[in-house]
Amino acid sequence: MPPIRFTLEATCPTTGARAGRLETPHGVVETPVFMPVGTQATVKTVPPNELEAMDTRIMLSNALHLMLRPGPDLVAEAGGLHGFMNWDRAVLTDSGGFQVFSLANLRKITDRGVEFVSPLNGDKHFLTPESMIRVQNKLGADIIMAFDECHAPGSREDAIIALERTTKWARRCLEAHERPDQQALFGIIQGGLFDDLRTRSAEAILSLPFPGYAIGGLSVGESKADMIRLLRHTTPMMPTDKPRYLMGVGTPEDLLVGVRLGVDMFDCVMPTRIARHGTAWVEGKQTAITKACYTRDFGPLDKDCGCTTCARYSRAYLRHLFKAKEYLGYTLLSIHNIYVLTNLMRMSRKHILAGTFPRFLEEQVWPLLDIEQS
Amino acid sequence: MPPIRFTLEATCPTTGARAGRLETPHGVVETPVFMPVGTQATVKTVPPNELEAMDTRIMLSNALHLMLRPGPDLVAEAGGLHGFMNWDRAVLTDSGGFQVFSLANLRKITDRGVEFVSPLNGDKHFLTPESMIRVQNKLGADIIMAFDECHAPGSREDAIIALERTTKWARRCLEAHERPDQQALFGIIQGGLFDDLRTRSAEAILSLPFPGYAIGGLSVGESKADMIRLLRHTTPMMPTDKPRYLMGVGTPEDLLVGVRLGVDMFDCVMPTRIARHGTAWVEGKQTAITKACYTRDFGPLDKDCGCTTCARYSRAYLRHLFKAKEYLGYTLLSIHNIYVLTNLMRMSRKHILAGTFPRFLEEQVWPLLDIEQS
Repeated sequence: MPPIRFTLEATCPTTGARAGRLETPHGVVETPVFMPVGTQATVKTVPPNELEAMDTRIMLSNALHLMLRPGPDLVAEAGGLHGFMNWDRAVLTDSGGFQVFSLANLRKITDRGVEFVSPLNGDKHFLTPESMIRVQNKLGADIIMAFDECHAPGSREDAIIALERTTKWARRCLEAHERPDQQALFGIIQGGLFDDLRTRSAEAILSLPFPGYAIGGLSVGESKADMIRLLRHTTPMMPTDKPRYLMGVGTPEDLLVGVRLGVDMFDCVMPTRIARHGTAWVEGKQTAITKACYTRDFGPLDKDCGCTTCARYSRAYLRHLFKAKEYLGYTLLSIHNIYVLTNLMRMSRKHILAGTFPRFLEEQVWPLLDIEQS
Repeated sequence: MPPIRFTLEATCPTTGARAGRLETPHGVVETPVFMPVGTQATVKTVPPNELEAMDTRIMLSNALHLMLRPGPDLVAEAGGLHGFMNWDRAVLTDSGGFQVFSLANLRKITDRGVEFVSPLNGDKHFLTPESMIRVQNKLGADIIMAFDECHAPGSREDAIIALERTTKWARRCLEAHERPDQQALFGIIQGGLFDDLRTRSAEAILSLPFPGYAIGGLSVGESKADMIRLLRHTTPMMPTDKPRYLMGVGTPEDLLVGVRLGVDMFDCVMPTRIARHGTAWVEGKQTAITKACYTRDFGPLDKDCGCTTCARYSRAYLRHLFKAKEYLGYTLLSIHNIYVLTNLMRMSRKHILAGTFPRFLEEQVWPLLDIEQS
């Protein structure tokens, strides 16, 4: 018995957008949901009580980073990630497949696994589906991910190699998984930017008994139009009774596109990364808080926002913090940006349940509309 | 009528340590008190709600830094520092005298004032007692400080020049102060490391009608023994019915020394500065959280500490955050260190009121005792 239970609560008859309920060993997650990313067992610059205050129900962490530092055995000794972070809500760990891809000059990939050089100290590691599941078993997240080969937009031949390898590795992950009753292992669909290869990968991965499925290899540099096309192609193949997770996405408009096309779960470092560079999402668009026009702007970032940053601080003060290179600025903008995505998913869910999602989607005056028309 | 009222509630008959109550336009401050330093209108890395959670009643900010950025007029437009930071508790601003001293290669001092080159952009500023009071009037803190000449340990001749100038400037500050009903202006005693010069400065400054008095020019590189000697020499000259503020101090043991010698108020950047370098006060001593012995230490920094960091996080997790260079580490250690000083003052107060301060002081197994015997 997998340790999670997913209940589909409503599906928008017009768009196919879904509202669901994901029960985990560490509480219920209502979907669609954005999962803040705590790569190194902390969401960068954000105190955990702020995540709790905005009712974050699940956060993501990264198995490869934690394997390198502080090491899976130490985390296991601390009682897994929940104990180590003292976070009693749900956690999902990514397997490291994406990091192998994003740190491309550090790896050599064969069917056996990946030769990986630690960017921390140059140590060589050989990563296999088995080893990365073992690491994730020790980290103890509620949801863990298969070790896949994430393929950059490129040749059809390479995409085929990566998808076939991902399928073989998916089987090996399932076999290696030692805690299927405590941790739900999700499979990942690859296939590059090719519709037929996405079909081939989906057929293979969806035939394996995973309690949830992810779409990988998107948000890796492809065009917005490609992403939408591939999502539109892939989600209809996925079972309705299991959660669907679009990995590494994204912006407010990307999340809305994803929800519209039937995705339930998202994660992305973007809200915290752009925040550390002084950028906030305001009405769905990126705004640089250091702009001169905010110098004497004593209103909040977004007067309609319910986050703790907008409740207390002005644009002028936030601008000052960034000009003065004060840490609090990173924290306050990160809180706001995570809240924006969190709230967008909460609003989407509300409208899906109420049967008003298509109108909600249209009412967003956001870039989404331009994209859809293009 | 000055806008503050100080009530002496108890004096330890053995040591002279004092417990008091300082009413300000933004709430009551119980003394002795440690004031966290928010140089640029934010206590570095610490979210204000964490200060509120530990019942911080007064914070310090810096007039010279805020004059350079974002500028006093902007802060005034925002409703003063309270409005700018959205902090409804008391604030004290330092005048910039210490910054002129600490950024020594940037200044030229005459009786008229100080030629000062902005470290931000090389702009020249001419700082006078009048200009720095004007800046502080605009910043709107509850307590503001006279513009003094802070003198580094050095020759008797230089110390005399600095103390005479400080006295003249103190008179000019009193005259320049435009909001004596809303902001309490404190005078500052100088005199270098010379007992007789401290006497001369104290007599001059204490003859002026300030609602509170500070001891400046300590914690600037002199020995611990010198600091204690000069404090012991100076505090008995100060009136009992006005608050006494020891500027720029300090460590847990320095604060206890100060309280014992009759000081009511303290400030220092040390708790946040050492925190950003991974150092926490544990049982009064500095401990580097990155030490190997904490790798698998799943207990709190200090099991008897009541701070939110110790309530939730282990030494192993804190060590990981510092090893991984994660911002949350700076925040969590800063919270702990400020709490240590805050709680030390709260405990001192409790014992002064209960008549048990001498025993409390003795029970501290801290370096304090070594110092006193030396």
